[in-house]
Amino acid sequence: MSQEYPSALFERAVSEFSKLPGIGRKTATRLVLHILRQQQGEVDNFADAMTRLKREVKYCKHCHGISDTDVCPICANPARDHSIICVVENIRDILAVENTMQFKGVYHVLGGVISPMDGISPGDLQIESLVTRVAAGDVKEVILALSPTMEGDTTNFYIFRKLSGCDVKLSVIARGISVGDELEYTDEVTLGRSIVNRTPFTGKTF
Amino acid sequence: MSQEYPSALFERAVSEFSKLPGIGRKTATRLVLHILRQQQGEVDNFADAMTRLKREVKYCKHCHGISDTDVCPICANPARDHSIICVVENIRDILAVENTMQFKGVYHVLGGVISPMDGISPGDLQIESLVTRVAAGDVKEVILALSPTMEGDTTNFYIFRKLSGCDVKLSVIARGISVGDELEYTDEVTLGRSIVNRTPFTGKTF
Repeated sequence: MSQEYPSALFERAVSEFSKLPGIGRKTATRLVLHILRQQQGEVDNFADAMTRLKREVKYCKHCHGISDTDVCPICANPARDHSIICVVENIRDILAVENTMQFKGVYHVLGGVISPMDGISPGDLQIESLVTRVAAGDVKEVILALSPTMEGDTTNFYIFRKLSGCDVKLSVIARGISVGDELEYTDEVTLGRSIVNRTPFTGKTF
Repeated sequence: MSQEYPSALFERAVSEFSKLPGIGRKTATRLVLHILRQQQGEVDNFADAMTRLKREVKYCKHCHGISDTDVCPICANPARDHSIICVVENIRDILAVENTMQFKGVYHVLGGVISPMDGISPGDLQIESLVTRVAAGDVKEVILALSPTMEGDTTNFYIFRKLSGCDVKLSVIARGISVGDELEYTDEVTLGRSIVNRTPFTGKTF
């Protein structure tokens, strides 16, 4: 690192920002200079938001998503369909599914996917608690909404085995060509699967 | 905004990150989820670095660059040539020039450039203190290293007029860098060469 900062405080702030994913030293410097231009109150507010988030945020005791209370607003909402559970890898995926406005059930956050390469085994994930939720009854369907990767598939299969004794419908989000994609550039596996899993055409798009 | 966060603490942290330049809500969400995965100590350290930076950082009484002490390490360094002052717009530009390893003098941070459109007049900048530094003697050369924009040229010309009575050589960094570009994004070789090939400033822009 050839860059020498004339201030250790500045250097430290840049280093801290550089630790964030996708933020290099140049971007970190720009962000820190922006912080320097703010009022003290704004900077304190920013710092307080981070420490309080980490210190006070809770994880919903039902779905393990983040929440300010013991039960998250989605699990606490009587208008949601509690008989359908959408299994996702992390909190970000809840936001992604919520954004589609196509799902009115509840979630279950695994906290990752089975990945022996990364040392993540089923015991590290919230799979047992999913089985407990399903075994408690009242759940009609479990939708597996993990990323279509080797690890996602492995996790899907593991959950499939774990729930095999339960009277519940198990489904997986459709894998096919993305909306807006060119057919000729779609990979063969995806295109092949989209043909095998073709759906009845009702004349409607959404 | 269709995205609803299941936690007000989370929402607040995302909002705070979104205020930073070049960071949208999607990136902010990713950064906050990263923060959530950190240890409490790491998050506290991050927050502390920001508040302490803002609270404790000083501005060098000679060059107005940031510093932990009353005089910055560059101005306090006897190995630097104090008879050559490089005039820059902001702290970031000091870092950019330092990175070229082509300059061994000292700096003077204006804190901006003259820009009537943004309501920045000469009185808002550290121009008087530059004149005082030069008038105090011992300064042989002032290198104007502002961005080659309309505002930079205006400021160059204003300083040229202000220093016209002083016995000092006035130069401007070579226009090897393309007009309209920002100084901080210029590659080091070009920026370094522009310092080596600085030309006498005659009060004319081209």
